[in-house]
Amino acid sequence: MIDWGHDEEDVYKTLYGMKTDKESVNTLVVISGGMDSAVCLAIADYLKTPETTIGCITFDYGQPHDKEIIFARELGWHYNADVKTINLHGLADNFKTALSKGSDIEIPDHSKSGVIPATYVPFRNSIFLTIAFGYAESWGYDRIIYGANAVDYSGYADCRPAFVDAINMVAYAYAIKIQVEAPIIHLSKADIVRLGNRLQVPWEKTWSCYRGEEKSCGHCPSCEYRLKGFEEAGIPDPIPYA
Amino acid sequence: MIDWGHDEEDVYKTLYGMKTDKESVNTLVVISGGMDSAVCLAIADYLKTPETTIGCITFDYGQPHDKEIIFARELGWHYNADVKTINLHGLADNFKTALSKGSDIEIPDHSKSGVIPATYVPFRNSIFLTIAFGYAESWGYDRIIYGANAVDYSGYADCRPAFVDAINMVAYAYAIKIQVEAPIIHLSKADIVRLGNRLQVPWEKTWSCYRGEEKSCGHCPSCEYRLKGFEEAGIPDPIPYA
Repeated sequence: MIDWGHDEEDVYKTLYGMKTDKESVNTLVVISGGMDSAVCLAIADYLKTPETTIGCITFDYGQPHDKEIIFARELGWHYNADVKTINLHGLADNFKTALSKGSDIEIPDHSKSGVIPATYVPFRNSIFLTIAFGYAESWGYDRIIYGANAVDYSGYADCRPAFVDAINMVAYAYAIKIQVEAPIIHLSKADIVRLGNRLQVPWEKTWSCYRGEEKSCGHCPSCEYRLKGFEEAGIPDPIPYA
Repeated sequence: MIDWGHDEEDVYKTLYGMKTDKESVNTLVVISGGMDSAVCLAIADYLKTPETTIGCITFDYGQPHDKEIIFARELGWHYNADVKTINLHGLADNFKTALSKGSDIEIPDHSKSGVIPATYVPFRNSIFLTIAFGYAESWGYDRIIYGANAVDYSGYADCRPAFVDAINMVAYAYAIKIQVEAPIIHLSKADIVRLGNRLQVPWEKTWSCYRGEEKSCGHCPSCEYRLKGFEEAGIPDPIPYA
């Protein structure tokens, strides 16, 4: 656990691999509507100078509900950042996963450790990041921020540092200088909450639940990780639960 | 240039990095409707056993015309392989490229060496291959064949061996055994034509022209490479040119 008693600048020094000097680095943040990418957007916003462009990219890939896309857009607006929604036209329906509209695989209650969860979408984050690279190269972004988290992560291989290194090798192969940075990859969920709180992330504009009902269910793996993080941080989660 | 006077089996030994023993390896071929991926499909078909599943994947990404998708499907049918068309809903319109329906960048006549061509679609083949990985993982394919060619290639970084290695590192990071193989990456266009001829590739079911008119234009970079290959191989190209 990070010692949050230090000077504020120290907080950012703990962020994995980030160039945290305030300098004009046009930044594309991959956002999902969830709390991890919201904190990443807050980091980008904190580090920006008046010259910096901050943009967001999010994906309509055929996930079970559209709530996360709505929340992603609202969050972008909150930070005055353009949000590009890439429509992948139900891509996930072509894959074996519980996280698609057309899937007959059930979203589980509670997470299991040591197994790849049914909510894993094969190669999803690779697809997102290669598209983000193409978008960043097209429109002059210098870096991509990706909210992967390897600590309280739920069994997804593409949230680990080895994956971030591999996807950056792909950009190297194009001789492109844009790199993916994953500033919160080594933070616990509780520390992500603490950092987000410092940065005044509007938690009410984030959505974590795998189910798209009026209120968050509170017991799918994604809700579980969120609630555990807020509880351990000793900070109340302001969103309503069913 | 390969010495084609040898025994037929020697032909396949020249293919870069391919496991060329006839064995049951379920194979997903990324096809574009063009001649290089057609030869790759012919290789997969040649190497199959009665137990092997050969599938194809192609992409509707917002390219300037649909002809290549129509040809890709016909080619799959010719080889009795399912062709999955992934609809990316005009993805290329989000990128800076001449190769999208909505682009106002012109497709050039003739290729230029040493510059990235206007027809480069940022990170396109990374996006295709990460989707192919997800599809292969979902439906039990053991390998992906990719028709990249680094010899008479037209300035695309994602047709080089370093790129193939990098994209395979991404799969390693997922602990997935599926790998991309690029069997014709080191062949000249003329040798690709010779190999295709041996394998009886139905050239009339392939489409290379960047323009989608009734007949191939004969002078865009893609037509140029094709015509040069056939000419150097001393084999007539059966498709009509304007």
